[in-house]
Amino acid sequence: MALTATESATSVTDSFGSAVALSCRECGARYDLGPVFACIECFGPLEVAYDFGRITRESIARGPNNIWRYKALLPVPADVEDLPNMNPGQTPLVRADRLAAELGLRSLYVKDDSGNPTHSFKDRVVAMAVEAARTFGFTTLSCSSTGNLAGAVGAAAARAGFRSCVFIPAGLEEGKVVMAAVYGGQLVAIDGTYDDVNRFCSELIGDPAGEDWGFVNVNLRPYYAEGSKTLAYEIAEQLGWRVPDQIIIPIASGSQLTKIDKGFQELIKLGLVEDRPYRVFGAQATGCSPVARAWENGHDVIQPVRPDTIAKSLAIGNPADGPYVLDICRRTGGAVEHVSDSEIVDSIRLLARTEGVFAETAGGVTTGVLRKLLADGVLDPEAETVVLNTGDGLKTLNAVSGTGVTATIKPSLGAFKEAGLL
Amino acid sequence: MALTATESATSVTDSFGSAVALSCRECGARYDLGPVFACIECFGPLEVAYDFGRITRESIARGPNNIWRYKALLPVPADVEDLPNMNPGQTPLVRADRLAAELGLRSLYVKDDSGNPTHSFKDRVVAMAVEAARTFGFTTLSCSSTGNLAGAVGAAAARAGFRSCVFIPAGLEEGKVVMAAVYGGQLVAIDGTYDDVNRFCSELIGDPAGEDWGFVNVNLRPYYAEGSKTLAYEIAEQLGWRVPDQIIIPIASGSQLTKIDKGFQELIKLGLVEDRPYRVFGAQATGCSPVARAWENGHDVIQPVRPDTIAKSLAIGNPADGPYVLDICRRTGGAVEHVSDSEIVDSIRLLARTEGVFAETAGGVTTGVLRKLLADGVLDPEAETVVLNTGDGLKTLNAVSGTGVTATIKPSLGAFKEAGLL
Repeated sequence: MALTATESATSVTDSFGSAVALSCRECGARYDLGPVFACIECFGPLEVAYDFGRITRESIARGPNNIWRYKALLPVPADVEDLPNMNPGQTPLVRADRLAAELGLRSLYVKDDSGNPTHSFKDRVVAMAVEAARTFGFTTLSCSSTGNLAGAVGAAAARAGFRSCVFIPAGLEEGKVVMAAVYGGQLVAIDGTYDDVNRFCSELIGDPAGEDWGFVNVNLRPYYAEGSKTLAYEIAEQLGWRVPDQIIIPIASGSQLTKIDKGFQELIKLGLVEDRPYRVFGAQATGCSPVARAWENGHDVIQPVRPDTIAKSLAIGNPADGPYVLDICRRTGGAVEHVSDSEIVDSIRLLARTEGVFAETAGGVTTGVLRKLLADGVLDPEAETVVLNTGDGLKTLNAVSGTGVTATIKPSLGAFKEAGLL
Repeated sequence: MALTATESATSVTDSFGSAVALSCRECGARYDLGPVFACIECFGPLEVAYDFGRITRESIARGPNNIWRYKALLPVPADVEDLPNMNPGQTPLVRADRLAAELGLRSLYVKDDSGNPTHSFKDRVVAMAVEAARTFGFTTLSCSSTGNLAGAVGAAAARAGFRSCVFIPAGLEEGKVVMAAVYGGQLVAIDGTYDDVNRFCSELIGDPAGEDWGFVNVNLRPYYAEGSKTLAYEIAEQLGWRVPDQIIIPIASGSQLTKIDKGFQELIKLGLVEDRPYRVFGAQATGCSPVARAWENGHDVIQPVRPDTIAKSLAIGNPADGPYVLDICRRTGGAVEHVSDSEIVDSIRLLARTEGVFAETAGGVTTGVLRKLLADGVLDPEAETVVLNTGDGLKTLNAVSGTGVTATIKPSLGAFKEAGLL
């Protein structure tokens, strides 16, 4: 995938809207927009830098009913809504009064990202990567995935006309495997953990065999990751252009949490929301809680772990953005907390029973952490709070196995009454 | 559930917006708005009659980003968006250029209702029934269901604070069973077909035990059924206020098809869209195709069948609205067609591979019928066409069983290359 400097300076810049460069998160070195993801100087992660023009609430409201209403804040072309893409976003922000009452909170919302096309927040990030892959001329879309991303890449590749080949750890949930495979691309299971899959992908990307491949979360990662900012924009707009006082976000690689914070900061700088303090809380499963452990111990460095939890979509033992998560939670007065697998299952049921939201295990993690932080007096029960559900219970049915019919009866009123169900 | 005439005339009317009465579809007899569903005169089905005020495209555009933007066209109170409800709708209308190219169509869209909160169109109809149940003071929400409705009722009851007890035929897909049960209501399986379940519910509704029960698709059916009109409104608005030339709709009870036609007719009468001809096509699975058989044979009466198809969400052997479906397809120059289970599976894969939409079996039925009607020269390949996907592939995983990983390998580039996957 050779891009000369001249090509890069013209066509590529147009394709990325208000994005002007890649910038190293560690040392600030700047690079042309290209399919690169690590700083040559210091090996720090690169992220997209922008030169935003004037952006108003009204100009956003005139946009389409999906993430492209925020296109002026994203690395995408001006005509992005006319290109074949999954067009995710504008998922419900559910006012969760019954759950709030049960937990003793004054004001609670669930941002329910199971409403996206493949029913997880991954559609947001993949939508960005698709545009970058198109611009860079990649022909195959790929990724390492804990399951949700595999489905999102498979679907988006089908819609946009890319070949796809995605890599998952062996042993994922059936719903995630079928959803990743049904779009007709290649789905390769790797004997190992997600971290093994990730290392394998880094190997492939350095090989000539991977030359025309856009790995959405490796060589396209700077663009891809920006998609999570749309969660911040939507939450603020759905609240009537206000940043919530407290937000609970799941941590896998940690990228989503850092980008939601980036999104809030952008809205504040652009004057789209009032500049008020907000607190960011990270949520992990106890069986994969390297960031929560570092938080507990006051460390700045994340000690990798080998995941063992039902929350497979969060089972990243070596989370790349873990240190940045710690920074943000400290800066905003938040925290990082973890809950056990049984608390995850209880919380899935609690959210379903009180709000009619059937979350995947990651939503059980955030709801469980919400409950734990409230019980521990860490969260302010009077403050406006948002909890994220980033995936769909239909993809992690095993977590609530044993959930089924109350009774099976003959089709008669007598049988119903005899069964004692009234 | 006793409602005196006085109560009915005041509070109830306010709660139903521009709806003014129930009207018999057969003989035109009118009734006060109440929890009734059949004409006392002729036993015909009752439907909601309205006295619409002035409704403009602009007034609709100012509404919320869900079905309540059309509240002026629905039997719901003016403050409906402030009440706890699942707020479905505004699902994607996917421009399906790749599927169109493969089939030789000029302009094709997929209305993808898997984007609703419980991932089927049933959230639309249940949202109406919830408002009616609230108004009539019912305390338990119930239904007979082929699966999708059970999940929609369970979730909506949880959100709105009703007790729920839903009835399904034994042997439904795991995804549908778990999704119906996870919200904490009662889920009762009946040994028999959907039609047996339906008969059982009619028995229960006549019993004192069912007095405080709102059966969304029995005694609340006139309100419930109106929810399907929102599919017509959304499709027209998403096309830029235009009715498509051709639309392919699945048939279970047939209610959805009749209400989409009613919705288009209302838009025409209100001057919200141009009055142009459109053709309505009904789609059934061969294993449960009583309406398609009647169409083939030129009959006006539907001969009930015993369903035997993987399209369980369409497996209603005695479809109540079958005769009205025949009328509409005749009036508009459409047709009713059916496809086999293997064609359904092929069509699920076709839609997934070309458009990244993972449909449940009902979406395989409509896509299969689209393909068949095109091949037979019944559909005009030059005309703007919409095909409905009313449910989610994650709930009918068995239909695409055998879909899984291409290969399982060790985490090394060598293993990948040896597996011949490049």
